[in-house]
Amino acid sequence: MNLSDVGERALVELARRVCRRGPRVRVGIGDDAAAVDIDARRCLVATTDMLIARTHFPLGTTPEQMGHKAVVVNLSDLAAMGAEPLALVFSVGLPRKLEVNFVERMIRGMDATARAYGTYVVGGDLGEADDITISGSAFGIADRGRLLRRSGARPGDLIAVTGELGAAAAGLRILLEGLQRGDYARLLKAQLEPAARVKEGVQLAKSGLVTSAIDVTDGLAANLWQLSRESGVKLVVDRAKIPEHPPVRKFAARHGFGVDDFVLFGGEDFELLFTVRPQGWERVRRALKRVGTAATQIGIATRGKGVFIQSDGKMLVLPDRGYEHFR
Amino acid sequence: MNLSDVGERALVELARRVCRRGPRVRVGIGDDAAAVDIDARRCLVATTDMLIARTHFPLGTTPEQMGHKAVVVNLSDLAAMGAEPLALVFSVGLPRKLEVNFVERMIRGMDATARAYGTYVVGGDLGEADDITISGSAFGIADRGRLLRRSGARPGDLIAVTGELGAAAAGLRILLEGLQRGDYARLLKAQLEPAARVKEGVQLAKSGLVTSAIDVTDGLAANLWQLSRESGVKLVVDRAKIPEHPPVRKFAARHGFGVDDFVLFGGEDFELLFTVRPQGWERVRRALKRVGTAATQIGIATRGKGVFIQSDGKMLVLPDRGYEHFR
Repeated sequence: MNLSDVGERALVELARRVCRRGPRVRVGIGDDAAAVDIDARRCLVATTDMLIARTHFPLGTTPEQMGHKAVVVNLSDLAAMGAEPLALVFSVGLPRKLEVNFVERMIRGMDATARAYGTYVVGGDLGEADDITISGSAFGIADRGRLLRRSGARPGDLIAVTGELGAAAAGLRILLEGLQRGDYARLLKAQLEPAARVKEGVQLAKSGLVTSAIDVTDGLAANLWQLSRESGVKLVVDRAKIPEHPPVRKFAARHGFGVDDFVLFGGEDFELLFTVRPQGWERVRRALKRVGTAATQIGIATRGKGVFIQSDGKMLVLPDRGYEHFR
Repeated sequence: MNLSDVGERALVELARRVCRRGPRVRVGIGDDAAAVDIDARRCLVATTDMLIARTHFPLGTTPEQMGHKAVVVNLSDLAAMGAEPLALVFSVGLPRKLEVNFVERMIRGMDATARAYGTYVVGGDLGEADDITISGSAFGIADRGRLLRRSGARPGDLIAVTGELGAAAAGLRILLEGLQRGDYARLLKAQLEPAARVKEGVQLAKSGLVTSAIDVTDGLAANLWQLSRESGVKLVVDRAKIPEHPPVRKFAARHGFGVDDFVLFGGEDFELLFTVRPQGWERVRRALKRVGTAATQIGIATRGKGVFIQSDGKMLVLPDRGYEHFR
């Protein structure tokens, strides 16, 4: 049996089963990031993400954008735990024939993006690889009692999401299909220069009202399913309430794509999907607004299993489909 | 100008120049690991190392040994800073046609080795790659005032090294040249299942007597040069005092290799090379002995520049030669 038979998710489960948990390990394999206690009050939150040019960077991605994205994917995992970033380290594999200038631009991209989020690139490793391979690791600090987990959603909680969805996947489609780029600068930017919801994650944790969170990397549907499984609740969302990035619907219509492929099943939005006690919703919404970010209530958690979507008066199972490696 | 024109070391200097240092960053790019303050007394020590099968794992390396080595290279960097390991995360790139069982064995190797050093694998990321790529990141905690740096050696300090040198490089030669393996189990083990000097690093830091340290990964000569450059001192070592792994000399003679290629210029021994105030040497030696490890004094630091070796009554410049990526 090889990896393409089982897929990424089964491999993560395998790793989760194999690796023992130490006494100080508060969150191990299977959440957005891991958390290890460092004193009576705080824990270190750590994550790692590997980007390989052929898989993760569409043709035309600049070296600065590669560096930028490598920082963002890692910071987004910290954000989903509600951690304040402390620092980043990068292992980078590069072909020997690559231009030095390319690498310098990539490192400048990493440095600038890290600093834009109030953190720093503090170390790394360089080695030879056939394809450009950037493996980052981000570290942060969080309050032990205020960590955002995937597993805390309870029946009655509201489901909400920051920002708008679908732009990054639409931007990817433009690049993959070589469509006219001029009209869709915002979609391309969402794909090539995504943002991480770092200060938003910190606000969600601080509120003490958020019961679970995950960043939208595999697509809203896949990430809703993960929340549902980890929390042991049924999630019901309302299609009409899901915030769409404005040009996505027009773009989809014009080129004959299904808008749901971007909004529900497209990945890499890096928005935060979270659940909140109903009485806390207004406070959380206002806290996010104070840091400049809109949040939208899109559904509700109930007793049961699975993820459902209300659309045009019908209630359907939302397919558990999205990006999965090895598949 | 491409990467093979400049080599790994110039690229590290480039990254060091480009990346700004934050206010809490105690040690940035260029040491064995980075250190960031987390409170008035302690800092987080973080490192990352990427291993790519084609470059780092000789044919015949088992999946467990790959996992083992990925843990050891990262813990060795923490050891060289004197940090206590807290946890490890791994990004792993794998070919889709790889057997699931292979991956399970690799993860078991990681888990078992991490636990053998009192630490844990707490998270990771899995993606597709043409060649098996394991990028690890280890983090630990150290006393801010007791961090071991590459830059602290002073004139008059003694130079010392833990354990014995040359076995890992000799083991690699056996594998690369397909030599008879039966007689050299210890050399093969040093290459395929190296050890990290974690408790030794902690002892060196605790002593407060050690002025600089580095782990021997690129070869004794290259690592002496790094200490010399970072500390701004001249280092003089005595060839007769350098501890050789016992079977290395016999192996070299029998197969017509130069023993120095293994002992001075071979890498991956993962021993700790350090400098110590002369009056502290006996206490440090005994502290290491209490944790079961011998240390040998091999030379002295003086005012000046460069690395010299006394051998057969002559004083020669020790060539700054060892493993360097992209070269």
